Amino acid sequence: MTKGHEMDKLSAAIKQIRNLDYPLMHKAQDRLDNLTKPIGSLGRLEELARLVVGITGKDNPTFTQKVIFTLAADHGVAREKVSAYPQEVTAQMVYNFLSGQAAINVLARHIRARVVVVDMGIAEKIPNPKSQIPNFKDKKINYGTRNMAKGPAMTRKEAIKSIEAGMDVLEEELIKGVDIVGTGEMGIGNTTASSAITAVLTKVPIEDVTGKGTGIDSEALKNKIRVIKEALKRNRPDSTRPIDVLAKVGGFEIAGLVGIILAAASHRIPVVLDGFISGAAGLLAYHIDPRIKRYMIASHCSAEKGHRVILRHIGLKPILDLDLRLGEGTGSALGITIIEAAVKILNQMATFQSAGVSGKGQL
Amino acid sequence: MTKGHEMDKLSAAIKQIRNLDYPLMHKAQDRLDNLTKPIGSLGRLEELARLVVGITGKDNPTFTQKVIFTLAADHGVAREKVSAYPQEVTAQMVYNFLSGQAAINVLARHIRARVVVVDMGIAEKIPNPKSQIPNFKDKKINYGTRNMAKGPAMTRKEAIKSIEAGMDVLEEELIKGVDIVGTGEMGIGNTTASSAITAVLTKVPIEDVTGKGTGIDSEALKNKIRVIKEALKRNRPDSTRPIDVLAKVGGFEIAGLVGIILAAASHRIPVVLDGFISGAAGLLAYHIDPRIKRYMIASHCSAEKGHRVILRHIGLKPILDLDLRLGEGTGSALGITIIEAAVKILNQMATFQSAGVSGKGQL
Repeated sequence: MTKGHEMDKLSAAIKQIRNLDYPLMHKAQDRLDNLTKPIGSLGRLEELARLVVGITGKDNPTFTQKVIFTLAADHGVAREKVSAYPQEVTAQMVYNFLSGQAAINVLARHIRARVVVVDMGIAEKIPNPKSQIPNFKDKKINYGTRNMAKGPAMTRKEAIKSIEAGMDVLEEELIKGVDIVGTGEMGIGNTTASSAITAVLTKVPIEDVTGKGTGIDSEALKNKIRVIKEALKRNRPDSTRPIDVLAKVGGFEIAGLVGIILAAASHRIPVVLDGFISGAAGLLAYHIDPRIKRYMIASHCSAEKGHRVILRHIGLKPILDLDLRLGEGTGSALGITIIEAAVKILNQMATFQSAGVSGKGQL
Repeated sequence: MTKGHEMDKLSAAIKQIRNLDYPLMHKAQDRLDNLTKPIGSLGRLEELARLVVGITGKDNPTFTQKVIFTLAADHGVAREKVSAYPQEVTAQMVYNFLSGQAAINVLARHIRARVVVVDMGIAEKIPNPKSQIPNFKDKKINYGTRNMAKGPAMTRKEAIKSIEAGMDVLEEELIKGVDIVGTGEMGIGNTTASSAITAVLTKVPIEDVTGKGTGIDSEALKNKIRVIKEALKRNRPDSTRPIDVLAKVGGFEIAGLVGIILAAASHRIPVVLDGFISGAAGLLAYHIDPRIKRYMIASHCSAEKGHRVILRHIGLKPILDLDLRLGEGTGSALGITIIEAAVKILNQMATFQSAGVSGKGQL
């Protein structure tokens, strides 16, 4: 199979990505300037409303269907004791998501979004007889990645298949409607993969992009850094080829998120990134095609230190800074409700003229 | 009338203010630590949930009734051309609030809060025959304050009456229920009053607490600073007596907000402060009794530069930083929905035990 054929689906999506609709954004700005408030006084809300108009190409975007995609997978590198939690927590948390009692379920209900949980490669089988569990998708690529400290986490083929699975996940949901996407994930060991990806693509030293994840101590952090160094030395990912980086030191859920981001951008749907792991997926997508940046909105800045490096590298300014470091899509959920507030301002406020309010005087 | 009698209502409210319920906060922290997430991984959400428990004295606080109080009044100092907008905009915006099409209405609907609009001293009569307009209260103290550049903005008696009117506003709403309060305001000229209050109480130079308000140019800003200097020179407010400061350089809506904050604290209801003007009211309340600090939550940091000075002085860390500078309670609305998300986390999430998720291992 040639490289061209191998990436047909991916290339087609990339070809579909358009520029933002700048004339419509300009029109939205005019409208914002005529609403009953001093010009620019709603700060970033105005910026977000304008951006959503540009992304969607709609004058009056509304968020009837808000969807948070929480992708889960396991990591072979968990065997190197890089996490504070045992590997089985990935599957256990997925059951928790499906029972509606995890943090992401609570926050998604709060903002009236639906959560779509995807098994991208959990180390055990998640039974779903006759597909009875709504909002759960089985896209398992494998039972966890291989240990990147010993060799590539996945094959190139698996990496591409994972991205395509993510694209499928997004596209399957289009039938129900998707007005805005939030990314989320679960995977014991996935901050290790994310730090490795970040170090390679941003060229920032490993020590400066590696944090305590779920809460390891300083000794364990030293081990985590050592493991990442080992993985990079052994695999030599090519920083100019994001899919090579993804295959060698990434994860199935990270690859799936790359697919979701790509597919959303190709369908002109705003993608709200969660924290560090989602950020690593965003970073890969950005390196695949920098135009994707315009479709990504950073919901928050994670307490995990590599995230700030990613946001600076891509040039994204987070909406919130609340010291979150949970993942699952929790930051996305909060970010989405702020963005929704922004588009409601654009859609529902009176203008100076319609409300009979005097304009700014000449001083 | 003696000073004691004069302030009976105020003193009674202050006497009712209790400490936070620290044992209950401790219990809430234990619960947070047992929820299915790494300890502390929801950062400020956990801090906010704990604080609401401490304020309300309730194990499982819920926000069924969210109320934003938007108090409006005019300022004699508007005659000194300190604002970009003419004085009649105060009344016009109140009509806009009552028609449900201003920014605060949009954001309040978004977070499912009700807006209570109060005329604390608008320069014209707001007709409300047979009190037909719901959610509007006429507590007019006077038709605008006097020009503080020429003498005191109000009498001491008016200042106390305004605070008490604010307390009444809050207490009248208790019948319908008030689980959390957001502050908001409208008043052409009120950033000038707020800068004057801030300069006196924080002792930070006028230049460093005076900004462009609704959007004046640099020349007009120079004039605004000159006017505040003149007002402070002429009135010599006593920085050790907050009510003296309020009377001499404050405003009716600012005084009303002081009353709302005091009353809310005395009833153990969390008060979410909006931006600079609400912050000036919070600053006054804090100087009346520093224990009130514990009941105040800063929703955001305004683009108006004096606000940062106030937050630092009181020691409040804002939830959001979105370059907002509109007022009305718009920041409060967004802040409230984040705080509500926080208490839902506390109330609705599964524990490790209930969800059957493995805990943190020993590394």
